[in-house]
Amino acid sequence: MDSIEIIGVKIEKDIEPGDDIPELIIEALNNMNIKLEERDILVICQKIISKAKGFLFDASKVKPSPKALELARKLGKKPGLIEFVLRQSKSIFNIWRRVIITETHHGLICPNAGIDKSNVKGENWYSFLPPDPDMEAQKIREEIGKRLGVYPAVIITDTMSRPFRRGQVNFAIGVAGMAPLLDYRGKSDMYGKPLRITIIAIADEIAAAAELVMGKTKRCPVAIVRNYKYPRSEQASAKELIVKLDEDMFL
Amino acid sequence: MDSIEIIGVKIEKDIEPGDDIPELIIEALNNMNIKLEERDILVICQKIISKAKGFLFDASKVKPSPKALELARKLGKKPGLIEFVLRQSKSIFNIWRRVIITETHHGLICPNAGIDKSNVKGENWYSFLPPDPDMEAQKIREEIGKRLGVYPAVIITDTMSRPFRRGQVNFAIGVAGMAPLLDYRGKSDMYGKPLRITIIAIADEIAAAAELVMGKTKRCPVAIVRNYKYPRSEQASAKELIVKLDEDMFL
Repeated sequence: MDSIEIIGVKIEKDIEPGDDIPELIIEALNNMNIKLEERDILVICQKIISKAKGFLFDASKVKPSPKALELARKLGKKPGLIEFVLRQSKSIFNIWRRVIITETHHGLICPNAGIDKSNVKGENWYSFLPPDPDMEAQKIREEIGKRLGVYPAVIITDTMSRPFRRGQVNFAIGVAGMAPLLDYRGKSDMYGKPLRITIIAIADEIAAAAELVMGKTKRCPVAIVRNYKYPRSEQASAKELIVKLDEDMFL
Repeated sequence: MDSIEIIGVKIEKDIEPGDDIPELIIEALNNMNIKLEERDILVICQKIISKAKGFLFDASKVKPSPKALELARKLGKKPGLIEFVLRQSKSIFNIWRRVIITETHHGLICPNAGIDKSNVKGENWYSFLPPDPDMEAQKIREEIGKRLGVYPAVIITDTMSRPFRRGQVNFAIGVAGMAPLLDYRGKSDMYGKPLRITIIAIADEIAAAAELVMGKTKRCPVAIVRNYKYPRSEQASAKELIVKLDEDMFL
């Protein structure tokens, strides 16, 4: 019987700059009496990484450029916030009502470059996305592996909006230890014909699955996905999940 | 401990028009010694429903309109196939290389109106999406409930491409018994501030999660998602998941 388990890992501590995320995860696993298994996938929301690593800023202290000032005035937003959104972005993809949709340096297309106020302490404080989520995933994989002797795959996630669909879902923005795509090219359907569906974004599916236990109000920023046979990879990057805008069939 | 289980339900039979999907699911559960539980979610790929209900066509028998003929010539595709794609579509959203991206009658934006050749018998035969996936979900929910005394929530899924992201993931195209969206509006973050993320598309997350056990080559078109506390609803529709094109912040 194929059966996958998704286990929520609660971390009650309010994460602060300097906190040791691998250690907090190990503590939480100990408290739950969960032994990490070879081939477990650890799914971690970017927010706790951004908070632990100090990827945070005070919008009232950011000096806006003339462009940010103008955009802030037009949209009725804080100039320091807009300045930081622009700094985190390769380009502005769209402006919709008061929302700036940007292309981040990672290539993610999302509102405000993924800058976020939820669960960040302080009235003018915001978190931004880790500049290199693959590296953060890799570091957590290695730290946990060193301390427990078991090297899990790691996926860093963010909850984002999508075109065409209402509501947000969790996406993979960083990976380590596993290929984010499952490639069926060359495989056949049950009648021996080539499969139409050739590549599945399993890292995004795992991220989405993990969100179901993580929730938004449950202090559960980590999940273990157990018993899923993913393709191992030491060179994988969440960048594989991104389609270049000039190659996108929907644009 | 919050823990969700995703159980693959294999159906070895090659589905044919007239097959009784609820009965086949019940048989498979019996073979696996699985007792359906109150609040289980049954996730079912649309392909077996389309095959059982005869949502199939022979492209060589479809008479193309002049518009379909012209488009078929331009793209180097079968005229009968293009004719059927147009019939299944409200509008053409985009043409990218040889792919027609359409808006289906359901409002889904996807290549070829979701028309698909994989796992369909016969060289010129294709399946198309159920015209009313919510109704199909509701009928399966009721049939299984009547026979087992336990009424699961049901999600009908299709695997589709997405803008900006490489690879496909499973989406919810029909729902019954559960709200497809989880609404956090009015809820606060850990510091008492309103949450930025307000609505989560849980039906899409569950669909994505289920794909991990369903796979594409495993004759596993059904999954049970167990132990997830979804919001019940008797009036829910997968249409709630669709953003109207003129309201889409990415367009």
